[in-house]
Amino acid sequence: MAFEVKATIATFGGQLLKLSHESTSTKTPMAVSIYLPPAASTQKVPVLIFLSGLTCTPDNCSEKGFLAAAASKHGIAIIYPDTSPRGAGIAGEDEAYDFGTGAGFYVDATQAPWADNYNMYSYITSELPALFFGDAAPATNFSAKLDASRVSITGHSMGGHGALTLYLRNPGAYKSVSAFAPISNPSACPWGDKAFSGYLGADKEAWKAHDATHLVGSDVWKGKDLKALIDVGTGDNFYKQGQLLPENFEKAVKDAGVTGVTVRYQENYDHSYFFISTFAQDHVDHAAKYLL
Amino acid sequence: MAFEVKATIATFGGQLLKLSHESTSTKTPMAVSIYLPPAASTQKVPVLIFLSGLTCTPDNCSEKGFLAAAASKHGIAIIYPDTSPRGAGIAGEDEAYDFGTGAGFYVDATQAPWADNYNMYSYITSELPALFFGDAAPATNFSAKLDASRVSITGHSMGGHGALTLYLRNPGAYKSVSAFAPISNPSACPWGDKAFSGYLGADKEAWKAHDATHLVGSDVWKGKDLKALIDVGTGDNFYKQGQLLPENFEKAVKDAGVTGVTVRYQENYDHSYFFISTFAQDHVDHAAKYLL
Repeated sequence: MAFEVKATIATFGGQLLKLSHESTSTKTPMAVSIYLPPAASTQKVPVLIFLSGLTCTPDNCSEKGFLAAAASKHGIAIIYPDTSPRGAGIAGEDEAYDFGTGAGFYVDATQAPWADNYNMYSYITSELPALFFGDAAPATNFSAKLDASRVSITGHSMGGHGALTLYLRNPGAYKSVSAFAPISNPSACPWGDKAFSGYLGADKEAWKAHDATHLVGSDVWKGKDLKALIDVGTGDNFYKQGQLLPENFEKAVKDAGVTGVTVRYQENYDHSYFFISTFAQDHVDHAAKYLL
Repeated sequence: MAFEVKATIATFGGQLLKLSHESTSTKTPMAVSIYLPPAASTQKVPVLIFLSGLTCTPDNCSEKGFLAAAASKHGIAIIYPDTSPRGAGIAGEDEAYDFGTGAGFYVDATQAPWADNYNMYSYITSELPALFFGDAAPATNFSAKLDASRVSITGHSMGGHGALTLYLRNPGAYKSVSAFAPISNPSACPWGDKAFSGYLGADKEAWKAHDATHLVGSDVWKGKDLKALIDVGTGDNFYKQGQLLPENFEKAVKDAGVTGVTVRYQENYDHSYFFISTFAQDHVDHAAKYLL
């Protein structure tokens, strides 16, 4: 289904478009925003996808993440998807901040009652690219503005997990990856245990296909250059509580002989958008190295 | 009363401190935030005061304005005051978005029942400087980090009115002024008419002392260099509705032979923080010219 443009906002020399569409993946209306840099008015520009964290909508990062400032200069578009279906009508979907609404975890659920709607993996990897890069939405004409062959991915917290896992599961689909405070080993933390149990079931073998720490050790990545930048704040309470576990990911990287992974521990920074906005330029610059 | 530190947040290499104190001007607790750039850990830094618009708290601009990105590089602190007393207990104070709570208009009210609490002019020009630059709050020790002799002022909408009028009423107190979409001639617009009627009474002569378009024509400013930068978005609905009236201010500037006033009309930009954040660097750079 084509996009409906809900708002067009001038910002950083370009435009932020707030879009809505009926999703075939989630069987719900979905909100998604895109920042088009000034360069998009004269040429096809590369794309950086930002996957948000628990509870967030496309608005949080587009208002508080500050990625557009650097993307404007580089001539990179940013796509801000939502974090789950909303209003699917499943009993209990709104009961917790870390499961159901706002907490899709970028997987395709296999368990009832979630499997009909909670298909954020397919939504991000197939449906959205077809809508933005294909001819599905001729009125908005994004395919003429965006270069489907140059896409990178980043994200925050649950969205950092999303960025890393989508990147690792789809070699070649994205030019680079980065993450802010990612849930790096969801099979081994409370957030991931709850989400994967609910969406994927009790068999933990099925979880490994959505766990960056397991995926990076797979044959396809052994000895390869990951082109990854990860920032984690040492003042982040979720890091301290063992929800993020970036050290597990680092160990798996080392064990697999994977190169090109920079993990930075930023002193005193927390889990908020104050942390994201501070390092937003570094992450856009990182993507620009591989997109431009 | 000394500040209570409610939160310390690492951002853009420095710290955002969320503070609270009992105000003698408003006779209520007041929230105020300050961004300390990295340079403040080794030297006294100059200060830029950002006055926010209708409904805003110190959080809106500190989360979405991105002034800290440029202030970090220049080594400038930013003070984000609140826009009114909150919880003064006056009947009707919460009934409208444009009068009472969140709408102090940076005047000292002379009319009952507002005069006891709605004294934002004194709060910004006297009480806050004493707290930040004096020895009133030794525990937080701001006076050792901030240079009281180098202060500039800026603001948005109602806060743009505040920045311009506080600057014009206090020659020499601030090194420069700037404003995003300021209410430039409040005596002649619906917002100002409502606020000044309520706070200052029916006598419109009393309003002139709080109207930038009148103040800039006073003898003290005739022929002087104003060191002012003003941005207005042409897509701003409040501009289109005649709430801002920057052209009236421009005419008064011209009539008074005042120099050093740059007013820029930014095509398609609206009244939001997407507009502020886009031009935040320009406004911090403008202040830096006179502060550094």
